[in-house]
Parts: sequence; structure tokens; C-alpha cells
Amino acid sequence: MPDRVLDRAFFESLDEDDPLAPFRAEFLLPPGKIYLDGNSLGAMPKRAQEIVNITLLQEWGSELIESWNSADWFHLPQRLGDKTAKLIGADAGEVVVTDSVSINLFKVLCAAIKMRQERSVIVMEAGNFPTDAYITQGLVKLLDRGLHIRYVEKDEIMDAIDPDVAVVSLSNVHYKTGHILNMQDITAKAHATGALTIWDLCHSAGAMPVDLNACSADFAVGCTYKYLNGGPGSPAFVYVARRHQEIAEQPLYGWWGHADPFAFEPEYRRGEGISQMLSGTQAVLSLAVLEAGLDIALRADLNDLREKSMRLGDLFIKLVEQCCAQHDFILESPRLSGDRGSQVSISHKQGYAVMQALIARGVIGDFRAPDILRFGFTPLYTQYSDIWDTVEALKSVMDKDEWQQDSFQTRHFVT
Amino acid sequence: MPDRVLDRAFFESLDEDDPLAPFRAEFLLPPGKIYLDGNSLGAMPKRAQEIVNITLLQEWGSELIESWNSADWFHLPQRLGDKTAKLIGADAGEVVVTDSVSINLFKVLCAAIKMRQERSVIVMEAGNFPTDAYITQGLVKLLDRGLHIRYVEKDEIMDAIDPDVAVVSLSNVHYKTGHILNMQDITAKAHATGALTIWDLCHSAGAMPVDLNACSADFAVGCTYKYLNGGPGSPAFVYVARRHQEIAEQPLYGWWGHADPFAFEPEYRRGEGISQMLSGTQAVLSLAVLEAGLDIALRADLNDLREKSMRLGDLFIKLVEQCCAQHDFILESPRLSGDRGSQVSISHKQGYAVMQALIARGVIGDFRAPDILRFGFTPLYTQYSDIWDTVEALKSVMDKDEWQQDSFQTRHFVT
Repeated sequence: MPDRVLDRAFFESLDEDDPLAPFRAEFLLPPGKIYLDGNSLGAMPKRAQEIVNITLLQEWGSELIESWNSADWFHLPQRLGDKTAKLIGADAGEVVVTDSVSINLFKVLCAAIKMRQERSVIVMEAGNFPTDAYITQGLVKLLDRGLHIRYVEKDEIMDAIDPDVAVVSLSNVHYKTGHILNMQDITAKAHATGALTIWDLCHSAGAMPVDLNACSADFAVGCTYKYLNGGPGSPAFVYVARRHQEIAEQPLYGWWGHADPFAFEPEYRRGEGISQMLSGTQAVLSLAVLEAGLDIALRADLNDLREKSMRLGDLFIKLVEQCCAQHDFILESPRLSGDRGSQVSISHKQGYAVMQALIARGVIGDFRAPDILRFGFTPLYTQYSDIWDTVEALKSVMDKDEWQQDSFQTRHFVT
Repeated sequence: MPDRVLDRAFFESLDEDDPLAPFRAEFLLPPGKIYLDGNSLGAMPKRAQEIVNITLLQEWGSELIESWNSADWFHLPQRLGDKTAKLIGADAGEVVVTDSVSINLFKVLCAAIKMRQERSVIVMEAGNFPTDAYITQGLVKLLDRGLHIRYVEKDEIMDAIDPDVAVVSLSNVHYKTGHILNMQDITAKAHATGALTIWDLCHSAGAMPVDLNACSADFAVGCTYKYLNGGPGSPAFVYVARRHQEIAEQPLYGWWGHADPFAFEPEYRRGEGISQMLSGTQAVLSLAVLEAGLDIALRADLNDLREKSMRLGDLFIKLVEQCCAQHDFILESPRLSGDRGSQVSISHKQGYAVMQALIARGVIGDFRAPDILRFGFTPLYTQYSDIWDTVEALKSVMDKDEWQQDSFQTRHFVT
């Protein structure tokens, strides 16, 4: 029995049956383009403009200082944190939205290391998103007390967790390959040896069901501008399991984390629960806008999202192999959809130029050094027919050697 | 010879002659209110809306990921930093706008302490804005190597700077009283004993000329949402004198501070110059909007601002003493305008209720525990006649015992 023929009509039929299809209309999408970079910067929810206008004209412009009370700006980190919690398997009071992923990682690393003072090793995956490693390197140097980072390949993680390990700090989904680490098993292994875990959810929050509490996770951080569509550089989240909140202490003492911020007491007394993860005054406008993206994600069924995401990836891989077999692409992502986040990465020795040529054709993916083309599938607004059109464009770029054009060879920075 | 009679006509005549008067039209101000809380949250520049629309609809909404390049989001911290530099006597390349005051203070504290490793004391002013003390307390505890904070009253600062002192960390203008510390003399004394200085410019940047480089300052931080009108919680700035940039190192290593952020190298290599003060991805929307306020401040003459600010304060004090003599207010700010920032604070044992009654009359100042009423004068949009009307309102509140109304007694938090 032959396989179903893959043609555009088939992809269109999938779009017709897609339960998530209505969400697409809630986003502003550039006409004539296929946007496959939502894993780097999510698209703009149309409601973002409404929120901005309220925050700007009504709150800042008219109510001014009173908005800290009347619009409750002061509790935006907690309110948005409670919404984020529902998307990552956490409870209300376990998450705040604040600062950047880097700063939040510093906070929970400090807290975790202090809870395991007698241990000296931090396990990280080699070659994952560098800022996580950088922050850890900075802290190790600052503390200067014999801590060291054990970088291991993904298949060596379980074996690397031994009784010297204080903290296992990992990305749930690899930023380059999309490979998913098993949060459940790794957390269990860490706990069995007495270590704590920090999970970076940048590439999983909003893209798939994540269940921190079911895994008995300890700490987590993540960004909100990718699959949560919070806007460029929107503030990050930080999770501390309730059972640790009494003892876990972060050192960036700021007045927003104080037990009584408006008493202006001379000595720091940390706030109850997750609020002690706050530090200084937060960027209200960027926080407020993020709510548009969170509210959309909360209305979507994360299982539907995951199913569509896996299918988009599977179809993309199949089509690339069918249409571009002779063009020396290598699949850098796991073939098995269950092991793969919401992206497919393929490499090519002319990867940079190929991506530039694709972008010139209106297909927006991104490039990661040295040779990886990333295609992010964001099930809230990516259509099945986009996959067909993307591979058609890729085929043209390759068949017609479009990537050889001079202007596609010059590198400028890419995020 | 008697003093000039203070009547409304006199204040109106000052408005007519005010060279800064045209700036008022550039701000959105609530009709029927007198806003004297710009020292807490500056008013909204009308251009903020235009910037938001561009950032939202054109950049995020349409150009999406490409805006990191095309709109140069990536260098907003440096570009806005260079603009801020001009307002605080720094050079281009000495300032970036990023993170919060608290986080930036942590960075420069770490850098400064490391540069004076053999010393153990940090001098701070007792009773100044608590977050500065909290951040320092958190770092002292984290480093756990015998550092301690020497809290002193303002008149004891000079004597407290001895050869044990590593860092003198002070607010240029006191958040409660508006008292100005002499940056020139204190910095000179610190340097004479081998200490470094950190200046918190939250209540001076944009309100008066500040000349960091003329004082040979070492480090500074400050917020942008007060006199710089950047919007609620807009990102803060951090200054490192160029002569220290080679050696000063902050520990919050993030990819934005890396020498080559898009190389995704496994090891942190700090960026050149001020860029190493960056850490994680920044809230673009809040950063972008801030430019409206900075651009206005750059067009104003800081000497004109300062002159008007001092005069507004002098007139306010004179009027309160003339109209409310019997009401037991105490002047908490320096009487001498040269020693006073752009605010006047008066205390009253019923301070909280008095401020609530004033707010009910449309005069927006704020309250600081335990008994201080703060009136901030923001020369870009505060009118001389506002001072007259404010004191008239205060007189009514007091003469008619309006503050005794029950609803004014109940405390809710205030920023």
C-alpha cells in the first residue's frame, strides 16, 4: 500500500481540520510571508495594541502614579506568574514574571547552591544556549569556593549525576536541535543522589505541555517572547517549588522582594513565597503587553498544540527529504517527534546563505552558527500549508542555486 | 522695603516669562489635576505613543525578528545610554540602559569590591532608599568574606571614609528629604583614601546638571522613570568611568555582555567597554518608549531646569509658611535651594491623611512613612501657578480639617 501523496491539497485539508486554526486570526502576521521564527520572537497578538493603549494613555498618561494601585501594576509579576504557572504545570504562587532569564537563573542558582553547600558540581549540557553557561561561570567565579561546572553531552547526563553534584541545570529543549531532555527521569535521578534541578523552559513553555510539579521539579526559568508571544525581550519567569520557598534564598535583595516594600525598613526581610524572587522595579509596559500572549495560550489546549507541532515537524522533515534529497541537508533535530521540540533544524555547509535566500523569498527562519537552519513551528499561527510552501521555496533556492547570490553571503548578526 | 506680594498674578507672571514653559505641551497631563509626583513617576511624553505604535505595529508586528537588525533593537541599551550620558556628565560609551537600578547596583558593587579586595567596608547613608541597602546586604551575605556596611548620617560621611573603606555607595539626592550630597567633595575624599564611589542618580538625573566625569566618579546607576519620564518601571542606567572599563568586571555574565554574542561560544568573554555591563535580553518596548523622555530632556537646558526647580521649591516653602503657619508642618528638606533636589518634603503627624485629602482635591503628591508629604517639582511641566494652587489647596485641607474625613485615614500602599 503506497503512502498518501503529499501535495498542497493534502496540507490544505489538514488546515481545514485544524482545531487550532481560529487562533491565527488573533495575531498580526506580515502579509506575503511565512514566519517560522516564533521560536525566537513570537508574533504579535492583536490585543497587544489594546493593552498598550490602556497602559499608556489611561494608566500612565492619565492616572499616573495612582496606577500602581488602581491598575495594580505592583502585582503584575505575581498576576502574570499565576497565569504562566498554568502553562508549565505549576501552582499559583510558584511563579513570578520578572527580569531576564539570565538574572532569574542567577537567582535560582544561588538559592540551589546554598541549599547544597557541601557539594561542588553543577551539571550542564555542553553546547546548549550559552547565556545559561555564562551566568553559571560568572557565579562560580564570584563565589570563588571551588565550585565547578561539569559539561556533558546529552547522553551522558544521567551518568554525570553523582553525589558531588549540587545542581543539575539544563534546558528542557535544546535551542539549536530542538532535542527534548526527559525532565521526569533526570529530575528523579538528581533527587535520588541528593541534587537539585533547574530547568530552563525557554523553548518549551507555550509550545508543549510541561508539568513541573508532576516531575517534582525544584527550580525553573524561562522566557516569554518565544512561544508565549510576549513581545521583544518581554520579562522572563522564575519558578520555585512551594516546598523550597521557605528555605530557598536569592541574593539580589531588592525592595520588590521585601516582606513590606512600602515600610522602607533599613534591613531586608524577604517576602513570603515566590515574591522574594523579585528584586527591583519592573518594566510595566513590557509586562502588561505580555498578558495578551499568555491569555491566548491559556485558551489553547496544550495537547492540541503539541500534536500539531509534532505533525508540522514530521511533515517538514518528510517533505525536505522528498524534495531536496540531492542537496546535502543533514537533519540536526531528532527524527522522532516525541524527542523533538517545536522546531526542526537542518544543517548545510552553505546554511547561512541558504537562509538568506529563503528570507528573500519571504520564508523567515533563522540561522545558528556554524551551519544550522532553524525552522520554528508555532502551532497557534503556523499553517500546514506553510510547510508545503516553505519546502517549495527551499527547493527553488537549492535547485536554482539562488543562495549563491553575493548579497546572501555577507553576514550580519542574527538573533 | 517689603517683600514682593505673593499672589496668583505673580505666579502667572513667572509662567509667562518661563523659558521652559513650551515643554509642558509635549506631555500628556491629567486635566484638572496638579501633578507633583514626577519624582516618583514622570509624566508621559506625547511622543511615547508614536514610538509605541512604531515598535509594536511596524517593528514587532510586521518586521518581526528582522527588527533586531533593521530597528537595531540589539543596541538600544548603548544608544539610549549615549543619550543618557549627555545628561549626567558622562561620555558616549560610558553608560548603558538596562535592567533595574537594583540589578545594576549589584553589578557595579561587585566590580568595585573586586577592585578593592583588600578592604572590607562599604559606606552608605543611613535611612536612604532601602533597595540600595538591601542589594548591598544581599551581596555581603552572598560573598561571606567579612565585608560590612558602615551606615552613617549625612554629616558623618566624610569622616567615615577611612583606609578600610572599599566603596562609598551613596544617593546623590535623598529620596525623602531631597538633600543633595556633594558628589565632588565626597568622591575626592574617597579617592584620597583609596576608595571607589558609586553614585545613585535616581533623584538627580534629568532634574539638575550632574557631572560625573568632572567629579572623577567611578560608577553610577540611576532610574529613568522619574525626571527622565521614561514610563513606569522603564529600564535603569549604569555608568562605568572609561578608565575602569578594562578592569571592572560584573558577575552577571549574560550573552548580551559577551564580546561576540552571536558566536554562541561556550565560554564567556566579556564585551569591550560598557557593553559588558549588559546581561540578558532586554525589554525592548519599555526601552524604546524611554527615548521620548530622553529626547525632551536633551533639548532642555539643564541649568534652566535647575534654576526653575530651585525657584519652585523656594516659592513653595515661602507660601506654605505664609499660608499654613498655624498647622504644624515641619520642613524636612533643606531650606537652602542649593542643597535641595527638585522636591520639597514637609512632615505632619497626620501626613498620610493630609496627602489623601490633597489628592482628593486633585493635587497629586505622595507620602513616605512615617509622616512625610513629598512634593516633586518637575520643571519641564510644573508651572509656577501650580505652586500657588497647591498651597491654596493645602490651606483649605488644613483650615477646613478636610483630612479628618474617614476615607482619608485608611492606608493603602503608595509608591
